[in-house]
Amino acid sequence: MKIAVDAMGGDHAPQAIVAGVEAARDQYADLEFDLYGDPQKVEPLIKDQTRLHLVKTTEEIEMGEEPVKAIRRKKDSSIVRAAQAVKEGQADAFFSAGNTGAILAAGLLIVGRIKGIDRPGLTSVLPIAEPGSSRHSFVYLDCGANAEAKERNLVQYAHLGRFYAESVLGIENPRVALLNNGAEEDKGDRLHKEVHQQLKAEENLNFIGNVEAGDLLVGKADVVVSDGWTANAALKATEGTAKMFLKLIKNGILNGGLRAKIGYLFLKPVFKNIAKQMSTSTYGGAVLLGLKAPVVKTHGSADAVAVKNTIGQIRTMIQTGIIKEAVDYFSPEENMDNQPKN
Amino acid sequence: MKIAVDAMGGDHAPQAIVAGVEAARDQYADLEFDLYGDPQKVEPLIKDQTRLHLVKTTEEIEMGEEPVKAIRRKKDSSIVRAAQAVKEGQADAFFSAGNTGAILAAGLLIVGRIKGIDRPGLTSVLPIAEPGSSRHSFVYLDCGANAEAKERNLVQYAHLGRFYAESVLGIENPRVALLNNGAEEDKGDRLHKEVHQQLKAEENLNFIGNVEAGDLLVGKADVVVSDGWTANAALKATEGTAKMFLKLIKNGILNGGLRAKIGYLFLKPVFKNIAKQMSTSTYGGAVLLGLKAPVVKTHGSADAVAVKNTIGQIRTMIQTGIIKEAVDYFSPEENMDNQPKN
Repeated sequence: MKIAVDAMGGDHAPQAIVAGVEAARDQYADLEFDLYGDPQKVEPLIKDQTRLHLVKTTEEIEMGEEPVKAIRRKKDSSIVRAAQAVKEGQADAFFSAGNTGAILAAGLLIVGRIKGIDRPGLTSVLPIAEPGSSRHSFVYLDCGANAEAKERNLVQYAHLGRFYAESVLGIENPRVALLNNGAEEDKGDRLHKEVHQQLKAEENLNFIGNVEAGDLLVGKADVVVSDGWTANAALKATEGTAKMFLKLIKNGILNGGLRAKIGYLFLKPVFKNIAKQMSTSTYGGAVLLGLKAPVVKTHGSADAVAVKNTIGQIRTMIQTGIIKEAVDYFSPEENMDNQPKN
Repeated sequence: MKIAVDAMGGDHAPQAIVAGVEAARDQYADLEFDLYGDPQKVEPLIKDQTRLHLVKTTEEIEMGEEPVKAIRRKKDSSIVRAAQAVKEGQADAFFSAGNTGAILAAGLLIVGRIKGIDRPGLTSVLPIAEPGSSRHSFVYLDCGANAEAKERNLVQYAHLGRFYAESVLGIENPRVALLNNGAEEDKGDRLHKEVHQQLKAEENLNFIGNVEAGDLLVGKADVVVSDGWTANAALKATEGTAKMFLKLIKNGILNGGLRAKIGYLFLKPVFKNIAKQMSTSTYGGAVLLGLKAPVVKTHGSADAVAVKNTIGQIRTMIQTGIIKEAVDYFSPEENMDNQPKN
């Protein structure tokens, strides 16, 4: 299995990318990597070239650039070249920590959609934090690839999410829910009321109804489906509040004198456990599901551990054949032609 | 100043309502109350009838009922009767902890909109949790009165929110922001891009740009304007995450043995402070802004303290004449006729 890696994207690139890739290479003997980037910056960082090949590129897409324009103009950028390698079957998956818009555009315009999918959905695996829950994570999409969605997009997300939960998380007959502004069937605006009815009528789908944004981390469902606009707002609010809580605790301890500092020492394992449970780096990257190959981005701020974990997730995606499953479902006649080697 | 109170609404009604009203009455010598409810249930709870008058009603609107139908049919319910008292100028404001939909419907259909306001917005005051911030709270609307919004609704919310921040929170020239999926001007779907431009062009408005859902509690703005759908999702996600954090800490302490319990004792003041800072009961109720009088709801789970604080907030609204200010702005010619006494 070969992964095409954009070595230049992310706040800590190329250091964190190279370190994460080498750690993943050392852990998984069945993985090979093509690293796309500027040799002057990347080569000195590589400790061991086993199953790791550097491909020279001369351009970089920066964080602020207009995605579609950048993809069209910077043909020799690390993002475009890595995506092209996947398109041409030279690699099984694409990975980057760079400009999210550019990754989405490269996925759509270069790697290409599965026939039958109108718009791919950005898919994250989020933690279930409910104490005592038997499940530890759930699939959440669309995290924001599309600000405006139609009914059929959400129905497609439901199936894509179900495949992901089954294949990658190993959950049998995953419970699928719709993110909505109330638990009852008749809640929501026109779009969400209609999607609720369509999901209810859908075959092969264990649809359990609506879930509210306040219950995301409670783990009522294995897959939570939403339009990208709402999912993005709820996810950012969740992350922002978690960050704020950690900040408030830290600040309270710093300003709480000796008493608070002693308390912190005693409670350290509890805090560490919570931080680990809530940490995004444990849960890997976001996958642009609905494309002909795994296209995966991780946070711009990703460190080497997050990069390594995300690569582990990509490996599972390739191994389990989730993309083939999606192709079979949405466009069975296409399967033979469109699959990249894997 | 007289407040018409629905004594029957809320999980802890009528006990928490009566206790909260009596506490507010004891604190504010200039307040009078009409309590609408079932005398058999309410009367035995009243300790002191000073400035507190019980008005007999025979019906109740339950939590699950279809709001508009309930308002039209249950003419002798505590919600309908209390709203009618405000409409007829017998009271200056309406308060309830009951069925949110029914309160919104009673506000719209009985108390009535200010001319020039298309749709009132449900307005909350939320905590700013950023350590060291000079501000402690901000105004947030529409929290969910309307799932579908047009451009002009959001522009009206911006002005209503500005009046509220100025009059009730005493913030001079409040900074107004638009909740959006990115900080940059060109971010968002069609609606939010257009609203951004309209707010920018608006006179008398200190518009500072977009704010993301992850930055709500950071306090970048004094007023955050949003469509009801997005604001509701972001607010619920924020509340849900805060609740989850407290649960995780509590659970970690309970299962962390003696060590964690000792740590908790030392850190108790820090936790108490955070809980107080994040608690909704400190910040009162949600106001349906854009009506001809203050219509205020509080959480169904409100206790007597939350009821008392919400009444303090209503008192400030009546005193500062924020409704008159809104009427002057949106329909200056109407002011003389439509104002309830205050």
